[in-house]
Amino acid sequence: MSRRIAIIGAGPSGMAQLRAFASAAAQQAEIPEIVCFEKQSDWGGQWNYTWRTGLDEHSEPVHSSMYRHLWSNGPKECLEFADYTFDEHFGRPISSYPPRAVLWDYINGRVHHAELVPGRLLKDAVRFSTAVRQVSSHSERGYLLTSEHLPTGQQSTEHFDAVVVACGHFSYPHIPAFEGIKTFPGPVTHAHDFRGAESLAGKDVLIIGGSYSAEDIGIQAHKLGAASVTFSVRTQPMGFGWPDTLQEWPLVERFTGSTTHFLDGRTRSFDAVVLATGYRHHFPFLAPELRLVTANTLYPDGLYKGVVFEGARDLYFLGMQDQWFTFNMFDAQAWFVRDLILQRAVLPDPQSQRRDIQTWLTRLKSVQSVREDVQFQADYIADLIELTDYPSFDLDTVVETFLAWKQDKKENILTYRDRCYRSVMTGTLAAPHHTPWMEAFDDSVEEYLREDSSPRYSALSSLTRQ
Amino acid sequence: MSRRIAIIGAGPSGMAQLRAFASAAAQQAEIPEIVCFEKQSDWGGQWNYTWRTGLDEHSEPVHSSMYRHLWSNGPKECLEFADYTFDEHFGRPISSYPPRAVLWDYINGRVHHAELVPGRLLKDAVRFSTAVRQVSSHSERGYLLTSEHLPTGQQSTEHFDAVVVACGHFSYPHIPAFEGIKTFPGPVTHAHDFRGAESLAGKDVLIIGGSYSAEDIGIQAHKLGAASVTFSVRTQPMGFGWPDTLQEWPLVERFTGSTTHFLDGRTRSFDAVVLATGYRHHFPFLAPELRLVTANTLYPDGLYKGVVFEGARDLYFLGMQDQWFTFNMFDAQAWFVRDLILQRAVLPDPQSQRRDIQTWLTRLKSVQSVREDVQFQADYIADLIELTDYPSFDLDTVVETFLAWKQDKKENILTYRDRCYRSVMTGTLAAPHHTPWMEAFDDSVEEYLREDSSPRYSALSSLTRQ
Repeated sequence: MSRRIAIIGAGPSGMAQLRAFASAAAQQAEIPEIVCFEKQSDWGGQWNYTWRTGLDEHSEPVHSSMYRHLWSNGPKECLEFADYTFDEHFGRPISSYPPRAVLWDYINGRVHHAELVPGRLLKDAVRFSTAVRQVSSHSERGYLLTSEHLPTGQQSTEHFDAVVVACGHFSYPHIPAFEGIKTFPGPVTHAHDFRGAESLAGKDVLIIGGSYSAEDIGIQAHKLGAASVTFSVRTQPMGFGWPDTLQEWPLVERFTGSTTHFLDGRTRSFDAVVLATGYRHHFPFLAPELRLVTANTLYPDGLYKGVVFEGARDLYFLGMQDQWFTFNMFDAQAWFVRDLILQRAVLPDPQSQRRDIQTWLTRLKSVQSVREDVQFQADYIADLIELTDYPSFDLDTVVETFLAWKQDKKENILTYRDRCYRSVMTGTLAAPHHTPWMEAFDDSVEEYLREDSSPRYSALSSLTRQ
Repeated sequence: MSRRIAIIGAGPSGMAQLRAFASAAAQQAEIPEIVCFEKQSDWGGQWNYTWRTGLDEHSEPVHSSMYRHLWSNGPKECLEFADYTFDEHFGRPISSYPPRAVLWDYINGRVHHAELVPGRLLKDAVRFSTAVRQVSSHSERGYLLTSEHLPTGQQSTEHFDAVVVACGHFSYPHIPAFEGIKTFPGPVTHAHDFRGAESLAGKDVLIIGGSYSAEDIGIQAHKLGAASVTFSVRTQPMGFGWPDTLQEWPLVERFTGSTTHFLDGRTRSFDAVVLATGYRHHFPFLAPELRLVTANTLYPDGLYKGVVFEGARDLYFLGMQDQWFTFNMFDAQAWFVRDLILQRAVLPDPQSQRRDIQTWLTRLKSVQSVREDVQFQADYIADLIELTDYPSFDLDTVVETFLAWKQDKKENILTYRDRCYRSVMTGTLAAPHHTPWMEAFDDSVEEYLREDSSPRYSALSSLTRQ
């Protein structure tokens, strides 16, 4: 009987896993049966935008945390696929910070034509609108996976020889309680449920949090006319050169109505609160002993090579790291997992796995600078690529791009998205967008590609966006 | 081995089921082992208010749909327990439309002291912060129930001889899509996630829906200063004598940005949208063949006496009806289910069950007026009470109270909560609240009971609200 592999999630990580198998199939490798489970009705994961918040039409937790007018907050040159470049997809240089819909177009473009076996598209391997309800170890080997087709409620329990968990870790909000928050009269929204800053125009906005969500929602609010944005930061300030109406304050102590009390004793009144307080690695569908338990870190303990679950065999996790690198890191991981499943690569014994994990954890502890932090993840990816046939690329130059991006943000947090970077894959220098980001209020693919006369992209575009 | 009974949910229905067993225990009946599963950290179900929306701190769907400043929207005389009156709890007459927290105090007061076996409080039978993940038929008899203690992630699978589903049906929002809604720039909130109307002050508010949620959120918005409230109603208008700034319009056809297009061709711009589009009977934790499938109706098909699931034995559902009556109907149901479990009452054969269901369904089809509708549910409850030792009460007079309430609302939708009704349980006439509802902006128990010098309530109160 043919082996069966389950992939949970068809976002960037799950799509990378599908692509990895398709890539082997194109080289005549024999591929096990692949079933990818996706609770949304299309693939793209976070990049599959929805206006819905909280629970979706099937009363499942909404997956995507994206909002209108979200543009990439890092240069696309840092996330470019090594086996499918932006040039290949768009047929001409585009800017370094494309909006959400353009990135969905790119990741969709890589896989929408690909086949796992002749005549069977990758997309046919995905069961859409299907939620995984329970995964448990099978008594002999492999896993029993119960899934539910959401529109019909029909459940099925199937055996899989291996399971790849590719559901991401930015979907379940971490929402701390603050004393008195229930008395705050305005909207209190976690970043996960934030869908746009338009309603914050003219408002005094409190954003609790000091990381990427806080930063980006803050400048979105500013861009769309918020009267003021106050960041409440627990640890160190972000320290950007904020416009006058954006300020960093200490952590909130408590609320009394619309009055917010800060730990330094100051108080201030706000119209709206956004909780940019992060996300939880949360896997309610996995039997407890199969769940990865970790904070958001560059090297979650318990994953050999960052993907192989130590606590059970034939169980893999993709993309569970804190992320400098994204799409191309997921690729390197997916290629390695594919090779393990195809038995092209061999797992060392548990002691050797533990030693390897420990080596990375020890190095991570010694990281002292942003450069070392980025380099750590670059080296992790290089280590993976060495084990597979994923195209090698100049990771050290990408590290420099990350550092330059950090510098751009320090110089001007409102204009960093207007900068252009060079692809290490193609050597192509990004083209400036036709409109400075602060003046761009239409984030559609059409507007982004306006004045584009490339027949190649037009043709592809009509195929990929129906 | 002692029989084991699972109750899913410790809201009004689950608390009624616990109370029913406690009542039998007080009469020396032998009670099986009862385990009640409640995913919230306290009991009260909908009446256990939370400021959270979407997902809770454990990433479970938030249960309660209540908002700040929610006051009962029907006279308390229609929902009063026959075995624990408002007089008994509060020690003096209170008004007919108490706020949320006062009703929680009342339902908590009935059970917080009760014991199932001597020395073991009812509350000890509840496993709080514990979600039911899966219920399936056991191969021989009864059910296997998998639950998860949310703070620790620890799961356990246990056998139960009978399962009582008491999770309610106002927790999973029905959220239809409207063309272009993703372009609407303001907040789009389902009633389930609505927590207060304060942020609607000065706003033009669109409320989609024409039932109780729409009506009450509309007048809440008006009370808290909305510039205008437009109800978009699919079927018949609510037809109240609205203030000038509240209007009923036809159903929305589509959105283009903040401009809303209605089916009659008119357009209007809004600042915020509230979807008061109802709820789904949704039981993701039940095996598909155990799920009640029904619209919101006074007599869901497939439930003998409105509680006994036809498709499997020893499975019961409480409170799944569309509701005129609430707390006292849940009681009548819970008492009957208790008697079936204790084998004080006997189920007729399946054909007789079906005939009984069919008789009610046939009668329901012939209902032509509000009076007949309310009387239908009153007669259903009378039928149940006749089968049990739940205290009988004057249901026909409660029907008249419902009809008077409907009339009060027609006369003035903003002042109906200032009317006073007489209890059929005690004969007590409600006392007017010290402040007209439209001028009452503090809905706390303390404010509601202000100027109360009754030592009895004070003493009880200090016990019940720690």
